[in-house]
Amino acid sequence: MSVQYRLLRLLRDLGPQSRAELAGRLEVPRPRLLAELDRLVEAGRVLEAGPAASRGGRRSTLVELHPGVRLAAVDLGASSVDIEITDGRLEPVASYAEPCDIRSGPNNVLARVTEILGKMRGQGHFTQLDAIGIGLPGPVSFRDGVPVSPPIMPGWDRYPVRDVLAREHGCPVVVDNDVNVMALGEQHSGVAHTVDNLLFVKIGSGIGCGVQVHGQIYRGAEGCAGDIGHIQVEPDGPVCSCGNVGCLEAFFGGVALARDAMSAASSGQSPMLAERFAAAGAVTARDVADGAAAGDVVCINLIRAGGRRVGQVLAGLVSFMNPSMIVIGGGLAGLGHILLAEIRSVVYQRSTPLATGNLPIVMSELGPRAGVAGAAVLASELAYRGPS
Amino acid sequence: MSVQYRLLRLLRDLGPQSRAELAGRLEVPRPRLLAELDRLVEAGRVLEAGPAASRGGRRSTLVELHPGVRLAAVDLGASSVDIEITDGRLEPVASYAEPCDIRSGPNNVLARVTEILGKMRGQGHFTQLDAIGIGLPGPVSFRDGVPVSPPIMPGWDRYPVRDVLAREHGCPVVVDNDVNVMALGEQHSGVAHTVDNLLFVKIGSGIGCGVQVHGQIYRGAEGCAGDIGHIQVEPDGPVCSCGNVGCLEAFFGGVALARDAMSAASSGQSPMLAERFAAAGAVTARDVADGAAAGDVVCINLIRAGGRRVGQVLAGLVSFMNPSMIVIGGGLAGLGHILLAEIRSVVYQRSTPLATGNLPIVMSELGPRAGVAGAAVLASELAYRGPS
Repeated sequence: MSVQYRLLRLLRDLGPQSRAELAGRLEVPRPRLLAELDRLVEAGRVLEAGPAASRGGRRSTLVELHPGVRLAAVDLGASSVDIEITDGRLEPVASYAEPCDIRSGPNNVLARVTEILGKMRGQGHFTQLDAIGIGLPGPVSFRDGVPVSPPIMPGWDRYPVRDVLAREHGCPVVVDNDVNVMALGEQHSGVAHTVDNLLFVKIGSGIGCGVQVHGQIYRGAEGCAGDIGHIQVEPDGPVCSCGNVGCLEAFFGGVALARDAMSAASSGQSPMLAERFAAAGAVTARDVADGAAAGDVVCINLIRAGGRRVGQVLAGLVSFMNPSMIVIGGGLAGLGHILLAEIRSVVYQRSTPLATGNLPIVMSELGPRAGVAGAAVLASELAYRGPS
Repeated sequence: MSVQYRLLRLLRDLGPQSRAELAGRLEVPRPRLLAELDRLVEAGRVLEAGPAASRGGRRSTLVELHPGVRLAAVDLGASSVDIEITDGRLEPVASYAEPCDIRSGPNNVLARVTEILGKMRGQGHFTQLDAIGIGLPGPVSFRDGVPVSPPIMPGWDRYPVRDVLAREHGCPVVVDNDVNVMALGEQHSGVAHTVDNLLFVKIGSGIGCGVQVHGQIYRGAEGCAGDIGHIQVEPDGPVCSCGNVGCLEAFFGGVALARDAMSAASSGQSPMLAERFAAAGAVTARDVADGAAAGDVVCINLIRAGGRRVGQVLAGLVSFMNPSMIVIGGGLAGLGHILLAEIRSVVYQRSTPLATGNLPIVMSELGPRAGVAGAAVLASELAYRGPS
């Protein structure tokens, strides 16, 4: 890591610092550090921010990131787009969200992203972006900046997302899988702060997992690490969308839960779900959450059964990986304590005792913001690493 | 990593090099590199080894590791001890193996290790060791150099293995879990050379797994990563020695296979095993391997069933970790192609296609030497990292 990169990251995470403080935090010979800082100041990337408390001369002058740094963080979901513009310290300057069907293809979706960014530029939130970070709901080749055979993204396979956005916006772009991005967000700005070995489990329409190892995103040999939704939990289970049988996603996740809720509604097993079904023509995960909160036994049992399946997979992964923390996020994290309690119960009972002795299993702190928070971190790493 | 450490590692892995070659391989300013090399020469750790081919003056003189460097690599198994003395390039100078019951406790076992090392010293293989690396068949706190609640090592819990050996032999000692050590051996000197993300699956009496991530041993938060023998494969399976039900080890591994072979022998299902049983009073994994080689259907099916269970667990881990290679080792790797074919078949069918497209699943190349080979690597890293 270059000294300039490390300096910029420190200023991102700590805010204005004196030169002496920066020198104390980096193991770099002081003259070298001061020279690199001067170069950043000359390049306009870092500004003198007035004297530090001690007021002792040049070395106690505070420096800070240029306040005009602008990063765009984009979180594309199966059915939504979230965009945040942040400054160099990752503080949100503006944000925007709207429904967006990923299946409408890369041309439409990315044109819409560009339109939204254009509108935000028009509103004066930035004039030029320093970098864009974007998370996609499918496997991504991080190196190439393209999705790779993403199951729920028809038309996106190997589409040059990074290069198209970079050309459009004249700035560097970084593309990653949405769960990797959420894990990074939670680790940088959320509940997993300073956690080195992290599992971030996203339970949305499907189920995926972001993995952090030794403090860094772990992507695996082909960039598809964390694809836990298709781990088999039952050899004779239901057929999954992937063609195999008994995958975790065939049992739980938004799609499976809606299926089971519909069946409980139409069979009349759950009067509450039947009522919702009669009123709206469909029932969703949200209705199950409401039902559980109101004490509907069928809804509670659906959540418990799902939690058990997730716990079953996580128990194996905990024995294998011995993580420092598990964070549960994604839309179905809203199912709340019943889900969490069931996951905990299975993992704590099933995994190696040594691996569970100090293992927190907690809800995401950033909630729906985890994706943009992580995309902003990725964008900043790219902006600060670049040649300068 | 210090420059001296990196220089010593290069000389370990590449043999004698000219100063120019070393400078070309390390991204260190040349004057600094030459100064560090001179310091190593002055300290007697590196020797001038005569002129390089070009014969052009000081910079084309070859340097090499001091030929007197001696490392001890110790591989303690459940029922055996293997010791190798190597030079600084990890070439074996002497080796020794004997049966050894780990359950006889740390005092007895480590006294025997010291006795063997004393004998090897007496035979002139070394006068002073530069470091000892030792692998233990159980969870280890790498930082503290002690076993932690090791299930098959009564009396060893938190026994100060590192400190006792260090005091006895007057050299630094490094202690690790046996599968971590075997994975390292395979990665440094075996089939997994240059593989960054590696699963090394040891199928012996039990089943464990060494994990390499980004080229480094991954130990997890508490040092117990890779404990895959206790991942549940069947919710209503047999009771495991750990107290849970349906663990992988309750289905397969040396202990489970011997149990199933005994049952096939005594029930007369397999005439071949029955014959062995009548002759020897017991049957072992070895007999199952022989039976399978001779075409005994019961033996073949026992191996296939075990391979399916191992494959079932690995399929999930492949989807999760997306490794670059899986290596199968340990005593039961001797079951050979039937086992490997079954594991491959399940993993290739069950895991995410993207993760299996380029995934070699192969037998250990080092076989029973994997442990000492890895322990020697660990010892060298310790010896070369030390203050100098």
